[in-house]
Amino acid sequence: MVSIVDALLKGERWAVAKAISILEDNGIQAREIVEMIFKHSGNARVIGVTGPAGAGKSTLVGRLIGAYRARGFKVGVLAVDPSSSISGGAILGDRVRMQEHALDEGTYIRSMASRGASGGVSFALRDAIRVLDVAGFNRIIVESVGAGQLDVKISSIADVTIVVLNPQTGDSIQAIKAGLTEVGDIYVVNKADISGANALYNDIRSLVVDGRDEVVVLKTVASTGKGVDELVDAVEQSLSRKLSNGYKEMLRKRVESELMDIMLSMLSKVVQDRMEREKEEEDSIIEKVLSREIDPYKAAESIVARVVRYE
Amino acid sequence: MVSIVDALLKGERWAVAKAISILEDNGIQAREIVEMIFKHSGNARVIGVTGPAGAGKSTLVGRLIGAYRARGFKVGVLAVDPSSSISGGAILGDRVRMQEHALDEGTYIRSMASRGASGGVSFALRDAIRVLDVAGFNRIIVESVGAGQLDVKISSIADVTIVVLNPQTGDSIQAIKAGLTEVGDIYVVNKADISGANALYNDIRSLVVDGRDEVVVLKTVASTGKGVDELVDAVEQSLSRKLSNGYKEMLRKRVESELMDIMLSMLSKVVQDRMEREKEEEDSIIEKVLSREIDPYKAAESIVARVVRYE
Repeated sequence: MVSIVDALLKGERWAVAKAISILEDNGIQAREIVEMIFKHSGNARVIGVTGPAGAGKSTLVGRLIGAYRARGFKVGVLAVDPSSSISGGAILGDRVRMQEHALDEGTYIRSMASRGASGGVSFALRDAIRVLDVAGFNRIIVESVGAGQLDVKISSIADVTIVVLNPQTGDSIQAIKAGLTEVGDIYVVNKADISGANALYNDIRSLVVDGRDEVVVLKTVASTGKGVDELVDAVEQSLSRKLSNGYKEMLRKRVESELMDIMLSMLSKVVQDRMEREKEEEDSIIEKVLSREIDPYKAAESIVARVVRYE
Repeated sequence: MVSIVDALLKGERWAVAKAISILEDNGIQAREIVEMIFKHSGNARVIGVTGPAGAGKSTLVGRLIGAYRARGFKVGVLAVDPSSSISGGAILGDRVRMQEHALDEGTYIRSMASRGASGGVSFALRDAIRVLDVAGFNRIIVESVGAGQLDVKISSIADVTIVVLNPQTGDSIQAIKAGLTEVGDIYVVNKADISGANALYNDIRSLVVDGRDEVVVLKTVASTGKGVDELVDAVEQSLSRKLSNGYKEMLRKRVESELMDIMLSMLSKVVQDRMEREKEEEDSIIEKVLSREIDPYKAAESIVARVVRYE
């Protein structure tokens, strides 16, 4: 483990790949890696890219990589795929459009599953950001693929959140439904060369800018790269503004929410272990619910009471 | 509270409405209602209707209401709207297509928010099913509106799950992505009068029937009612088969999963209360994470250790 971490701190790609795989396995080794790298982390800035399926997020991320590389940044990309609610498996995202950067040493691209224990942001995702961070990637793009915003609240881990919208698919309505009007720092009307783009731009401006002065609405054509440089400028301006204004408070809230996620996962494990160990007793409680002798809340309470130290 | 529950048991509509509102408020009164009605519940069968947005779920549910009413059942409908990830507010679903049944005493239709504490099925939804159940509604349709399957796992509360798909929108791919191929007992290719319906029907048959003998694939045209009677037959057959085969085991798993959801919610509250009460100590732990003195897992562990009784 020490040798992986040493290589990570030198920015070696094999170590990044290996470390993220270990994080995804979520075993004891994952905890060891985080323990060893955490003190070195905190230098990268995280850019979230979200929006409805088909908005052109992957193409735009491909363009962002190019623009950031041209400015001398090292760019990590973590694409979060929605998991099946049943199997927990990840669908491979369309990473093809990013592959032109695959051989560039200053770029690292990876798809991750969003298993999202307890509805929170996947632990592996947060820790993978730390891995890229300590390996020297100073701009990390987290792309949420598909309708992942309910599952992975990208804005709770990103320093700046870009919401990408598509004029073709009634995205202003989609955006309202998904709560996207509340999470973005920057709204991008992509495919701005097609009809409907101006209408969407005006819709979004009236929806999001009202009362939120810092919000930026931009147009891009990701397929040609049009507007991408202006987007990078807007991201960097948003980052500067946040870093000089309330950043500590944002980090504090982020730590609080991460701690809560981890604690819930730990508590869930404690309860499950307890239920397995005291199987007979737990079975009898479940039987009582099945026979409608006690209601589920009373039953849960009686189990929780044995696990929790109330003081 | 006693008077509400008395009226509920007599099937009075005002009491159903009042009780579900109390459940949605999620206060102490909600617990009281569940405690009082739980022993009377368990008679209704729950039919889940899910699928991608635009598949025609609401129209189909409207038709199912009619078909079930014609067969003498009392039908309750709970339409679960996806909540904004930020505000927690519900978007009003398109209930218009169901309104023809609004004045029928044997039908009760209600939209509910899917706040989904800890990623689980909203407690209010499970308890609202109980309310309808004890009020004499013997078929309860739970419709998940939009892309809610990540949020509300309808198949974990329904006795029979119908997945509705639309030939127009590449729904076989959507279905795979959303894990829907694994949750349905019955797959409905709706809008079966348009082109693409047969192709989708064949896709779905090959996707879901392989290895799952009991799965049924049907075609409907919800707008005209075509195929709806056959759908009700299929639902009832699926119910009979489940009731005579492994139903107890299914109920047991459902209780286990409900208890786990409730316990996680209770534990989350315990931790939050503790963090508020011991604010100084918790603040100093968060400060240590912010200064990268300890990593988030160590920090969470130290808080959990004070809450949990390890034995």
